[in-house]
Amino acid sequence: MRIDDLDTPVLLIEADAFERNMARMGEIAASAGIACRPHAKAHKSPLVAGMQKKTGAVGICCAKLGEAEVMVAAGIDDILITTEVVGRGKLLRLMALAQSARIGVVVDNEENIDELARAAQTAGVRLDVLVEVDVGQRRCGVAPGAAAAVLAERIRDSRWLRFRGLQGYQGAIQMTADYATRRQQVKDALDKLLETAEHVRKAGHAIEVLTGGGTGSVAIDIALGGLTELQPGSYLFMDAKYAAIEWENRAHVPFENALFVLGTVISRPAYDRAIVDVGLKAASSDGGPPMPVGLPGASFAFAGDEHGQLSFDGKPCPLALGAKIRLIPSHCDTTVNLYDHFIVGRGEHVEDVWEIAARGRVQ
Amino acid sequence: MRIDDLDTPVLLIEADAFERNMARMGEIAASAGIACRPHAKAHKSPLVAGMQKKTGAVGICCAKLGEAEVMVAAGIDDILITTEVVGRGKLLRLMALAQSARIGVVVDNEENIDELARAAQTAGVRLDVLVEVDVGQRRCGVAPGAAAAVLAERIRDSRWLRFRGLQGYQGAIQMTADYATRRQQVKDALDKLLETAEHVRKAGHAIEVLTGGGTGSVAIDIALGGLTELQPGSYLFMDAKYAAIEWENRAHVPFENALFVLGTVISRPAYDRAIVDVGLKAASSDGGPPMPVGLPGASFAFAGDEHGQLSFDGKPCPLALGAKIRLIPSHCDTTVNLYDHFIVGRGEHVEDVWEIAARGRVQ
Repeated sequence: MRIDDLDTPVLLIEADAFERNMARMGEIAASAGIACRPHAKAHKSPLVAGMQKKTGAVGICCAKLGEAEVMVAAGIDDILITTEVVGRGKLLRLMALAQSARIGVVVDNEENIDELARAAQTAGVRLDVLVEVDVGQRRCGVAPGAAAAVLAERIRDSRWLRFRGLQGYQGAIQMTADYATRRQQVKDALDKLLETAEHVRKAGHAIEVLTGGGTGSVAIDIALGGLTELQPGSYLFMDAKYAAIEWENRAHVPFENALFVLGTVISRPAYDRAIVDVGLKAASSDGGPPMPVGLPGASFAFAGDEHGQLSFDGKPCPLALGAKIRLIPSHCDTTVNLYDHFIVGRGEHVEDVWEIAARGRVQ
Repeated sequence: MRIDDLDTPVLLIEADAFERNMARMGEIAASAGIACRPHAKAHKSPLVAGMQKKTGAVGICCAKLGEAEVMVAAGIDDILITTEVVGRGKLLRLMALAQSARIGVVVDNEENIDELARAAQTAGVRLDVLVEVDVGQRRCGVAPGAAAAVLAERIRDSRWLRFRGLQGYQGAIQMTADYATRRQQVKDALDKLLETAEHVRKAGHAIEVLTGGGTGSVAIDIALGGLTELQPGSYLFMDAKYAAIEWENRAHVPFENALFVLGTVISRPAYDRAIVDVGLKAASSDGGPPMPVGLPGASFAFAGDEHGQLSFDGKPCPLALGAKIRLIPSHCDTTVNLYDHFIVGRGEHVEDVWEIAARGRVQ
């Protein structure tokens, strides 16, 4: 089947670019001798997670327990859940999961550690636990410094929990375009994590894992040193805005846009405007509008849940009724979460369909 | 099961408010003697569509062919697809659907009418067709005036298509808070539709259906007169912003918030802040942040795909780790589209679970 014959809107992976992205991250991590545990929140697909493991990943990250359940059911056996798991129902599910795979979880609270310890004891399960440190995002995590040592102590007090190390992730700096600025931001975050690790070590706790980093920071994280595991996610697809970020020495970022929303022109209400079938339910808006491909002078604006507008601002719109268009998602993670399948294309043809099995798994 | 024992994030319908909303819209339409064809894009659930038909709806609207396919498969037999259907693959699906239900579709383009006529003839199917008029939204639709008569003529030229009337919908004015301003906006849009209808009638085409209107405009549409069918959707749930709109004589809008996202506090990083498990994948952001319920002084901000922040701005946060919170979605349609199920609650208990079977049906 030809890609042009697909009904739209549809989510397309360009296989060539996708494979290059996957291989490049594998090479970057391998040549630095650092473990890569890619974040599956970006793709939510056990098939893709399996490919990541085959190209050198030590395991995967999941943002939610529900994602991890889908991954384990599909045979992925080593997962770090990067968000705190809180509440009785979830702890029961977590322990059930930890009976069939190696599961790590992050904590930032003594009460949560006690809950985890009781649940693990009841289930007869041993669980890997990392302390999350707030390295600047002001979200979850303990403040940098001595607090993490107190939690490490609490974890060690339970024979059912195993203290593995620290997580420090700063999402807000991944897309800083200027390299020197981003480098400094990454260094500031990393320093907070390393300083905290020093506190924890001095309190007598071995640290096996220091995990963090994202697509925008990996090269800097590696150059600065300190992390033992990287957790990038977006590199497989690349959000529209990632294209603007500089790599070292003003080089271009070594990953390519590999994810596209395909749409169709469904109305031509004016000479310089086309209405397409891509609205808020077909491309996420939290990162801004998606970016049209191959249409110089065109700008995209959402025009409702089911409509998007392509404006050519006074110049004639070259798109006939029924014409197909491509958009680069402004934010891949939330766009992927709208679809049940990736269509995998190579050149002009559809090569495969991959299920986004963990779509909607927010619990 | 108690609602408080649910894993979160979860999408909750409060059954009492939901039933009152459904009954009220039924009464409003019935007492005005106007047909109501509610828009199923808001709920995407055949179960809810069935309830709407039982409470007086003449049929339903769908935004997308894929939604209509799910509805017909579940036994809904009279559907207007309110968005233009373009492209060969879609036309084949449309004709297949029209063989097992009464399907209407809107057009704004001669070429599309010719495509529809050929596809209907090939399939041996008769199809209801309405001309969409742009009554101010600047999206799809022909300009008000004579253009619609040309399309009606073209529709009549095919014995496989049946010209039914006109659609004119103005989404942008539904949430204008001030009643007098909204009334004038609704009148302006309605005048354009009625003026166009006059052109079409003068050209010799009977108009059986004039459809339009939304939750914010129905009472005004009824008072002004002219429409034969209403297509409101949001009244079942009510977006957070709808609460601010005035009804006639400064009365409160007669529909209640009946849809909530439930979340859990997963981190307490500061005395005046809590992090909850509701992020961009659990509540849509296109209408702004969702609104916390029963937490005076709290403001919600998205903190990533999986995190939300509740700030109390210098005052102590009363929420303990594990506490459950409720949020009113800023935009129900796009929030519903993130979930596979509604949890239906009455009082403190879970009463039912309804599948959102058309979730993700963007094609």
